[in-house]
Amino acid sequence: MKLLNSLNFSGGPGVLPEIVLQQVQESMLAVPEIGLSVLGISHRSDWFAAVVAEVERNIKTLLGLPENYHVLLLQGGATQQFSMVPMTLLRGKTHPAQYLHTGYWSGKALPEAAREGPMSVAWSGESCAFRHLPQDDELAFSAEAPYIHYVSNETVEGLQFHRVLGRDDVPRVCDMSSDFLSRPCEAERFSLIYAHAQKNIGPAGVTVVLVRDELLADAPTNLPGFLDYRQQIKAHSNLNTPPVFAIYVILLVTRWLLQDIGGVAQMDQINRSKAALLYRQLDQSDGFYRGRADRQDRSLMNVAFNLATPELERKFLAEATAAGFSGLGGHRAIGGVRASIYNALTLTAVEKLLGFMEDFQRAQRS
Amino acid sequence: MKLLNSLNFSGGPGVLPEIVLQQVQESMLAVPEIGLSVLGISHRSDWFAAVVAEVERNIKTLLGLPENYHVLLLQGGATQQFSMVPMTLLRGKTHPAQYLHTGYWSGKALPEAAREGPMSVAWSGESCAFRHLPQDDELAFSAEAPYIHYVSNETVEGLQFHRVLGRDDVPRVCDMSSDFLSRPCEAERFSLIYAHAQKNIGPAGVTVVLVRDELLADAPTNLPGFLDYRQQIKAHSNLNTPPVFAIYVILLVTRWLLQDIGGVAQMDQINRSKAALLYRQLDQSDGFYRGRADRQDRSLMNVAFNLATPELERKFLAEATAAGFSGLGGHRAIGGVRASIYNALTLTAVEKLLGFMEDFQRAQRS
Repeated sequence: MKLLNSLNFSGGPGVLPEIVLQQVQESMLAVPEIGLSVLGISHRSDWFAAVVAEVERNIKTLLGLPENYHVLLLQGGATQQFSMVPMTLLRGKTHPAQYLHTGYWSGKALPEAAREGPMSVAWSGESCAFRHLPQDDELAFSAEAPYIHYVSNETVEGLQFHRVLGRDDVPRVCDMSSDFLSRPCEAERFSLIYAHAQKNIGPAGVTVVLVRDELLADAPTNLPGFLDYRQQIKAHSNLNTPPVFAIYVILLVTRWLLQDIGGVAQMDQINRSKAALLYRQLDQSDGFYRGRADRQDRSLMNVAFNLATPELERKFLAEATAAGFSGLGGHRAIGGVRASIYNALTLTAVEKLLGFMEDFQRAQRS
Repeated sequence: MKLLNSLNFSGGPGVLPEIVLQQVQESMLAVPEIGLSVLGISHRSDWFAAVVAEVERNIKTLLGLPENYHVLLLQGGATQQFSMVPMTLLRGKTHPAQYLHTGYWSGKALPEAAREGPMSVAWSGESCAFRHLPQDDELAFSAEAPYIHYVSNETVEGLQFHRVLGRDDVPRVCDMSSDFLSRPCEAERFSLIYAHAQKNIGPAGVTVVLVRDELLADAPTNLPGFLDYRQQIKAHSNLNTPPVFAIYVILLVTRWLLQDIGGVAQMDQINRSKAALLYRQLDQSDGFYRGRADRQDRSLMNVAFNLATPELERKFLAEATAAGFSGLGGHRAIGGVRASIYNALTLTAVEKLLGFMEDFQRAQRS
């Protein structure tokens, strides 16, 4: 039996705040101040220009970013950024950009960089099956590198950096797709941050890019416009028709973060509470639930764990689904179980999952 | 005073069927059969695989396309296709592809092609200010061209081809963004058709590409995956997270076309009726309303016209907006007035506009 509304622990597209969904629902037939469906409003309207301007402002306010950062709202997902970054910063360079290979998603960025220019892998977690992240003394960052690239949170393996990497004299580029606006991130220490929307800030189909103006000084001028950060900046993300609806949802989510939650520091507190409850449950289960990531690198967004056997995991997932918990299956690349607890996943939903996990464990032992 | 729901004559993003908007609205909080918001359903779910499969099937059914055509649902708009087409078919070629320059949008495709390989402009409407399209005897298509490229309907100027161009031994590539699924189009005579969604089939943020399998036999293998038609085909448009929501809307629109309207021939009949009413109004206005395009090339989708002076046009647009008609301003590139009457714009809405136009004309002369 399917519940009317499941609790959504999916790795992404993930859950969005109920209050945002209600506003979006209303806008389907007519955005109140406009009298048109949000799906049929011109991207050249004053209304939409104001939406983009407010999204830009809200994101800069949430992260405390100064004037020399641009906020872009692009199509193509983080995957397109895997290519746009080296197309812009690596073509024709002599020294390699340094990439960290810390899991499934950072691994996807490697061949796209290699296609465009010289790159090297500064550290790889392959030998530890991506169960932990590098320590500082395992890393050597070169002053010659055009940039370093890493992924702040690996959704598949449930790993997250809790510090900023690299060196201040080399541009930092970071894929924050799965923890963007989930916590303060010292954004000003990065030259370029990108994040697709579908974890914490909106529906699939739009990607936020924050880029420091100076980074683009030597960018190539022969790229097609949609792949050219400078052209996109000049057009305020409206070079060609942008995904109006997805951007409108980001507007509502950033308003929710600012007005209802109070900011990313407050969001971080809530996210830490949720994660602490789940990890405690794993750690106190006498090995019944086994956290995948080493403790110091545990993600606050994706709690990946295993049970004793694949059979038991299948049973767990089947019963969880029947009980109204959705999206708990681990990523197809590694299997297991994964509870994704993005910004909009409530503490109440986590508490319900804890209850289910406790009941399931007890039932297996009785 | 703003009406609660304006009638949307916008050039795009355009109006969608009311019945589709109601279904979409319901899906915001929970898709009935799933119990999750459509914005939070995994793109790797069985549900979404079925959505994509049905969209592929519906579009092929609507256009009568055989097995050797693939249906893709990509990001980046027609603009991305302006580049993907020559990246795929023109790089490294000796003979130029032939492009027709028939208006604003086909003009945008030219520099993107020239960036990638040899191209020539087979005909340009610049000298006639894009008031008409080429006659057959003005066109010479080369058997050596890798492909020909044209735009079936120019939204800005209100021009539309009412025949298929080119020769059967050279691949035809056509941008049908603004009249896709509005009429039968002899789709099998084209090797590649692309159309962004935001006129007739969905919200901005997704683009349909129909491509004949044989066309890609010699396509380059060194493109990033998101720009590689073959990789997208293999992944059924799910190479990286696609715009799930926008694709779901296309599903509902194609169902509406198949089940409620009865197909593209029936849609064409309705569209012809709407256009005929509007053009008759222009032609019978004693020159008060002046159709922009020459008669034989008039668009069934975008009725572009002028009034005697820019002042009078401004007055017309201001009063039309106040009366609840939205989006009637001409494209910023050329001004004037434009009534876009895409699939979902009802005959009733057209009739209301006719009434308004009549009243406005009478008021100026009294």
